[in-house]
Amino acid sequence: MNGAPLAIALIHYPVYDRNHRTVVSAITNLDLHDIARASRTFGVDRYYIVTPAVEQQRLAEKIIGHWQVGYGATYNPKRKAALELVTVKETLADAVHDFESEFGDPVKLVATGAGAAATTTFSGFRDELRSSVTPHLLLFGTGWGLADEIMAAADVILPPLKGPGAYNHLSVRSAAAIILDRLFGE
Amino acid sequence: MNGAPLAIALIHYPVYDRNHRTVVSAITNLDLHDIARASRTFGVDRYYIVTPAVEQQRLAEKIIGHWQVGYGATYNPKRKAALELVTVKETLADAVHDFESEFGDPVKLVATGAGAAATTTFSGFRDELRSSVTPHLLLFGTGWGLADEIMAAADVILPPLKGPGAYNHLSVRSAAAIILDRLFGE
Repeated sequence: MNGAPLAIALIHYPVYDRNHRTVVSAITNLDLHDIARASRTFGVDRYYIVTPAVEQQRLAEKIIGHWQVGYGATYNPKRKAALELVTVKETLADAVHDFESEFGDPVKLVATGAGAAATTTFSGFRDELRSSVTPHLLLFGTGWGLADEIMAAADVILPPLKGPGAYNHLSVRSAAAIILDRLFGE
Repeated sequence: MNGAPLAIALIHYPVYDRNHRTVVSAITNLDLHDIARASRTFGVDRYYIVTPAVEQQRLAEKIIGHWQVGYGATYNPKRKAALELVTVKETLADAVHDFESEFGDPVKLVATGAGAAATTTFSGFRDELRSSVTPHLLLFGTGWGLADEIMAAADVILPPLKGPGAYNHLSVRSAAAIILDRLFGE
């Protein structure tokens, strides 16, 4: 991909639950697969799974490992190619540090959310990525979305995804796919 | 939604497995949720789950029912609103018949696939839907994609989704989200 290096971080803490409490959300198997496959399709450089829960980190690593070595890797090499992008990190700061160590610093943080107050448009940000060499880290929240402290730390906030009506409750898997397509689709 | 009525059919038979054998694929819980939520977001009129396997029909109906009545409906009304669009049918012909009985006939079949030989472009088809009143049924294949007999019966074939590289192995959930966004996104 020409332009700015781009990574995704799927945040499991701090995110909100349905009652707007800050929680650690659980790893979802298909979040790993779907977003890894979309990342590979649209030329994303890294995909970070961020969770402070050690047993959840182990679960994510087990899923990734299953398709990286032995029978899983042979059975489905396309999944292997996608999951090669995935790295598990304890905190967002760890993901930023890892991305900076390989692609340069400082990384710009790009937040997404169904109720986000946008600082740019998709076409504006698409152009910005093409003309930039600054690494950008695209943040997706699980559960009921990214905590305010993450939104406040973002350098860029993308607009919410909308259809013709008021309902915009997409899964994080669908939202990530659509946003990557808007930024990098043919 | 102005323009043509539009429904989705998620086909579990006839589809290919990894060895290009025609099979009945299994229902995936998140296929129901993710595509229902994207359908509700982008103004789709109906979402058909097509499988000839009776125990799989029961499984799909159990998942839908869980969020339609009692605790599930109260716990998450957004899921209820999405899953209200979903109907389980034994065959594609049954789905077509149901859609026609409510929205008029004949329905046009619109196929999708990672290796599809397109008969239109996304922008061309988007314009066509806006200026038409003919019901269109968008077909998505599970497993390794729609069987040739379904591709051959389609009136319209949409282009494969592509990023900057050769890899285009999106999940059906991601593909459906992106295609609905391309056709109906803001």
